[in-house]
Amino acid sequence: MTFSALSHLECPRCGATHDADQIIGLCPCGSPLLARYGVPTLTKADLVGRAPDLWRYHELLPVRSPENVVTMGEGMTPLLPLRRYGAELGVQRLLMKDEGLIPTGTFKARGAAVGVSRAYEVGVRTIAMPTNGNAGSAWAAYAARAGMEALIAMPLAAPEICRREVSVVGARLQLIDGLIGDAAAYVREQTGYFDASTLKEPYRIEGKKTMGLEIAEQLGWSLPDVIVYPTGGGVGIIGIWKALNELRDLGWIDGPLPRLVAVQSTGCAPIVRAWEKGLAESEPWEDAQTVAFGITVPKALGDFLVLQAIQETDGCAIAVDDADILAEQHRVARLEGMFICPEGAANFAAIRSLRESGWIRADDQVVALNTGAGLKYPETVPL
Amino acid sequence: MTFSALSHLECPRCGATHDADQIIGLCPCGSPLLARYGVPTLTKADLVGRAPDLWRYHELLPVRSPENVVTMGEGMTPLLPLRRYGAELGVQRLLMKDEGLIPTGTFKARGAAVGVSRAYEVGVRTIAMPTNGNAGSAWAAYAARAGMEALIAMPLAAPEICRREVSVVGARLQLIDGLIGDAAAYVREQTGYFDASTLKEPYRIEGKKTMGLEIAEQLGWSLPDVIVYPTGGGVGIIGIWKALNELRDLGWIDGPLPRLVAVQSTGCAPIVRAWEKGLAESEPWEDAQTVAFGITVPKALGDFLVLQAIQETDGCAIAVDDADILAEQHRVARLEGMFICPEGAANFAAIRSLRESGWIRADDQVVALNTGAGLKYPETVPL
Repeated sequence: MTFSALSHLECPRCGATHDADQIIGLCPCGSPLLARYGVPTLTKADLVGRAPDLWRYHELLPVRSPENVVTMGEGMTPLLPLRRYGAELGVQRLLMKDEGLIPTGTFKARGAAVGVSRAYEVGVRTIAMPTNGNAGSAWAAYAARAGMEALIAMPLAAPEICRREVSVVGARLQLIDGLIGDAAAYVREQTGYFDASTLKEPYRIEGKKTMGLEIAEQLGWSLPDVIVYPTGGGVGIIGIWKALNELRDLGWIDGPLPRLVAVQSTGCAPIVRAWEKGLAESEPWEDAQTVAFGITVPKALGDFLVLQAIQETDGCAIAVDDADILAEQHRVARLEGMFICPEGAANFAAIRSLRESGWIRADDQVVALNTGAGLKYPETVPL
Repeated sequence: MTFSALSHLECPRCGATHDADQIIGLCPCGSPLLARYGVPTLTKADLVGRAPDLWRYHELLPVRSPENVVTMGEGMTPLLPLRRYGAELGVQRLLMKDEGLIPTGTFKARGAAVGVSRAYEVGVRTIAMPTNGNAGSAWAAYAARAGMEALIAMPLAAPEICRREVSVVGARLQLIDGLIGDAAAYVREQTGYFDASTLKEPYRIEGKKTMGLEIAEQLGWSLPDVIVYPTGGGVGIIGIWKALNELRDLGWIDGPLPRLVAVQSTGCAPIVRAWEKGLAESEPWEDAQTVAFGITVPKALGDFLVLQAIQETDGCAIAVDDADILAEQHRVARLEGMFICPEGAANFAAIRSLRESGWIRADDQVVALNTGAGLKYPETVPL
């Protein structure tokens, strides 16, 4: 039995292939690399009875040996109907996947679990990364569990709880007076660390694609009409798209893929602007600022993949403003009892707008990803 | 197919039985009531493939109709080996069940999910409860999802995040200048609310017993040698004991039950004092104070059941001090990457002490419950 069907790494821009069993970052052409797999000896029935975490899909993940898996039980988060709030929005079949119920409280744990495990497997023992907060919390935690050293560079404006999370697990925390790009510049100057920045290593996305695998499995291998995702670096939406394509290649799903919606804030909407202009890549956003701090990414390395994903699925990109984000966060809480993060609430502001414009129909089945627990954003609700 | 095998309610003190399908609180004799079940048409094999939440055990839970289930996907939290920290403690087979990965971030969600669902089913539409914080967060959230009204009375010293959680879901928050007993006195004075205080209604414990069901299922229906639990009101440990007895009655497990350990803080240790004196009930603790605020319960209604549980399983009760609690919280974070709550960390201070005394042996399989996410206690770690 082969634990992983990982075959090689492929560049989605220049098409070059690379050996996966080495320490590697970007393609020499500058593009992120994507993991490619052979046909695994895995059936849908094999999954029944496996533990409810993302490692149930280990054949479709890059870690070759179970001994190298670093896990805290992440994955298989609930996919919950929002009946009362959906009725208020005019979307009867509204579902929320709650990524708050995961170690460190955000979906970033998926990328960290797989990314740290695979980095450890190929020999990495020290990592460094820039972060808007939550990815740093997650990578620091998994690095600690693996016994690896971590350096996390984070803007001063990042959520305070993330600083504490990084410190408590014993990682080195570097605060940056700037945005995530400035933190990235700091990381590039450090020596002796593996750069685990978003999409600069190939495996974080493999962890995040499990959101797509889980949505398909939880819906009985049928697909929703629309999937809505708050988009900063874009790895979540690229990962979901990659997962659905892999499942289609396996013959486990068929029909059109869900229309993927990339949601940004009007305070930082480079991908929306590129989408509206019909560009293949985004341009850096000036003076980025939003209450949904996790999606404050002025220029994402994987922007071209996000734009390709929404293009190929007949999706769209849409920006929503901070007042609407906070209003929807409170409506979800009052009608469904769920305290979601601002990034997750941005989805619902987008759904309201897309429903009003008719882009989302009343009978569409819509899945929104709540990317993290509201508990990490106490200041967004009154005391 | 019968969704629930609920039969009736029974008083563990006077032995009286009561109809379960009515709105009911304590037994007229003053004791909490316990739910009793007929023999369900359920096999271990039936569980395979059911969704990974606590409703997979619906035959052993009190909600009669699936339409009345109010859920946010709670339950089947990970049971994780702590290899590096266990080696440091001298307990090779140390496992932690992480109750931080649940809606509202603590195990209280289990009691709230089942308690709110069943209250709704028997006709309750407004609830009130005193709380040290986390139970109030959970009951307010599930009440909101059910469309029920909630009044939550909480000490001023309760975690700040819990106030925000109660407010954001639209419940009425009453702050109390005192301890949980003072909050309980306030709730008793209110009219028009169902009193959902700890053990004053019979179903919260049914939700919490699922921790015991899950531990048994996750260990392949074998049992650990020791289960360690931080004890305030005591419902968690009573619930685990009840679950294991029910599984034994079903013939799903055999052999001796795990030795149950009730952990308290030296700043509030009424059950430990009663245990050491050989008393059947505790006496109210004066000037209760500890960093593990969730277990600041000077006199628990179910104290006699906790004492019976540890007596009958050859367990024990032990108090640990705040400095040791915080030291273990940091050790777990550094060695395992897990940011646990102070109540959960109290377990590890107890395990260290019990290992040093020889009460826990080096080859014992020990399960510790981390009752909540450290994210709810930011002030316990440095900024």
